[in-house]
Amino acid sequence: MRVAECLGRIDARDAEVRAWAYVDRAATGGEGPLAGVVLGVKDVIDVAGMPTTHGSPIFADNMAAQDAAAVALLRAAGAAVLGKTVTAEFATYHPGPTVNPRKAGHTPGGSSSGSAAAVADGQADIALGTQTAGSMIRPGSFCGTLAFKPTIGRYPVAGVLDTAPSLDTLGLFARNLDLLVAADAVLTGAGALPAPHAPLRVALCRMPTWDQASGEMQDTAIELAARLHEAGCELSEVTLPEPFTRLQDAQLLIHRTEAADVLGAIRREHPDDVSAEFRAMIDAGAATDPADYAAARALQEECKALLPTIFADVDLLLAPGAPGAAPEGTGATGDPMFQRIWTATGAPCLGFPGAWRADGLPLGLQVIGLPGTDRQLLADARTIIAHAALKEA
Amino acid sequence: MRVAECLGRIDARDAEVRAWAYVDRAATGGEGPLAGVVLGVKDVIDVAGMPTTHGSPIFADNMAAQDAAAVALLRAAGAAVLGKTVTAEFATYHPGPTVNPRKAGHTPGGSSSGSAAAVADGQADIALGTQTAGSMIRPGSFCGTLAFKPTIGRYPVAGVLDTAPSLDTLGLFARNLDLLVAADAVLTGAGALPAPHAPLRVALCRMPTWDQASGEMQDTAIELAARLHEAGCELSEVTLPEPFTRLQDAQLLIHRTEAADVLGAIRREHPDDVSAEFRAMIDAGAATDPADYAAARALQEECKALLPTIFADVDLLLAPGAPGAAPEGTGATGDPMFQRIWTATGAPCLGFPGAWRADGLPLGLQVIGLPGTDRQLLADARTIIAHAALKEA
Repeated sequence: MRVAECLGRIDARDAEVRAWAYVDRAATGGEGPLAGVVLGVKDVIDVAGMPTTHGSPIFADNMAAQDAAAVALLRAAGAAVLGKTVTAEFATYHPGPTVNPRKAGHTPGGSSSGSAAAVADGQADIALGTQTAGSMIRPGSFCGTLAFKPTIGRYPVAGVLDTAPSLDTLGLFARNLDLLVAADAVLTGAGALPAPHAPLRVALCRMPTWDQASGEMQDTAIELAARLHEAGCELSEVTLPEPFTRLQDAQLLIHRTEAADVLGAIRREHPDDVSAEFRAMIDAGAATDPADYAAARALQEECKALLPTIFADVDLLLAPGAPGAAPEGTGATGDPMFQRIWTATGAPCLGFPGAWRADGLPLGLQVIGLPGTDRQLLADARTIIAHAALKEA
Repeated sequence: MRVAECLGRIDARDAEVRAWAYVDRAATGGEGPLAGVVLGVKDVIDVAGMPTTHGSPIFADNMAAQDAAAVALLRAAGAAVLGKTVTAEFATYHPGPTVNPRKAGHTPGGSSSGSAAAVADGQADIALGTQTAGSMIRPGSFCGTLAFKPTIGRYPVAGVLDTAPSLDTLGLFARNLDLLVAADAVLTGAGALPAPHAPLRVALCRMPTWDQASGEMQDTAIELAARLHEAGCELSEVTLPEPFTRLQDAQLLIHRTEAADVLGAIRREHPDDVSAEFRAMIDAGAATDPADYAAARALQEECKALLPTIFADVDLLLAPGAPGAAPEGTGATGDPMFQRIWTATGAPCLGFPGAWRADGLPLGLQVIGLPGTDRQLLADARTIIAHAALKEA
């Protein structure tokens, strides 16, 4: 019984990893395409009968009356809803108690910290998470699991905390690609996968932040590209056009400005019960010049419009999933510099381990597709992952 | 009047940078070799008539009756003691409110956060700091100022918080090299500098953590080495012998074990008033197997004993000062992976900016000398800095 296995793993590991905000030890699954699959739910997403704390003491007793739409779909397909996974405060910066399951003392990344750690550590099969800056692909990279941020808007978001509406994206972590494909189909009604591209056209993408990636991370991306080329993929290199070099800062401005709008009331009404990081973000966002916000949103749209040209001769871009391995320390969750531009453009991204260091930490990469091509990306992902380094928990 | 200039700079910048825990607006200097020099003091070091908070609310009212020995020496030499600079909690991990003065939203590094930020931003001329893991060279690297961690034990430590006695090192930040040389002489009684080495023998040192440095940081070190070679320095490369690959982890174990011994009572008596990071560090240290501690200390001594051989044909090692530029976010202070082994061996290190990114953040490097050769290192530093990128505030 898979629930019992996950509960056993939690009993053995929770004191160290602390991935869960709430566990329903009586969880059971049902019949359907996800029968026998154990689900964790990031604690900014409602599950009926469990509190939705948003990682904040302010919401410690915020019991949810009904499932979020995505949870309801997965439950109806047979998944056992095991509990709520730790989130950084309001899915932003201030971390919860979760520790990287691959190496003690290192961050699991955030804000979907518990979802990534639980799946990486075999405490759940799949987990829901959200990404507004880098909150899925980064923890997936740091913990060494599959992390899928689909095209923005692909999964239903009723019952999910709003933090920045033009960026918020609901996504999935999964123990293996079959589980991911199945859960994606349940959430979207998609049918069987299309045929994979043959040959698959992959472009190594030295994103504008490439020079800030560690040498070992750069090497991991370059070496996987070489292996894919040897395996028959058409390999090229893509340099993103100039507007993308400004999109990182624009995403940050959009994020904090919209967060100030959506979450500002919490900061004003509970100034002593939110973190200093949260106050600073909201205050900075509240001070944004409307003209700057408009310019940032215009740049976002300009970059989105450039994507079809970028993908004209390429199926997938290959890039680092983070600047390096999970940093030491659990006071912060690492830098989203390799996610912000893809969150801003709404492009689907799949994160996976590209290599493993001797100390047990993974070096996570990502492939990026054209918005709307999610099922094709998942079909082509099998080729990518066959040459990467996924370790199924 | 230099105090008035610094106060003016604080008035203009403190709301953003927040480098100070306490400012004495009536500070005055005296006669002597440091006449007209404004000093900041990390808030784990006593200054008579000011609180020593250690960055903790537990010590908010901990008024110091007398100056620490180093403060007394600098004051007697004419320095104006302007105030106390923000420290991470007990000079460990949990950050104070300071923000990087070069780029808002980025960490200044820690734990000597305020000292590095104040000097980099022109709010003080020199500042005292401490390093037990990476608490001087890292914030110096992130903020873009001179940071000098002398040979362990070189400066008098009476009146300075003990956190891990076999590692704790008192050091100096300075606006320029002349100020650093003068303050170092006051603290040690040293006379004029020796003649610089000619030619200076510099070795690029790809430390065991080299692959974890960003590409731009690696390039900065390699390019400075090339400039020094063109300028007449003898250039070589040094690979540290095998025991050094284990010293990073050993330093971490020694640090937390000794911290549990020295600071454990605070954690036990005030469990709700210390940070989660601090509790975790102390608890991990308290659980250390004594045999593991003994082995780590033995490795520390083994590595110290290897230093004379490493420096047999070399005057200075050149290495990254941090894995990259200051990370985004102020919830953590960055990784000390480029400092731990030099703190553990007690070798003198001088940090300085090697290059500047377009976004205003520095890429900090360091040179490392043989323990005990501090004045020679300072003499040779003029050659290094002439080809680096120091921007005096």
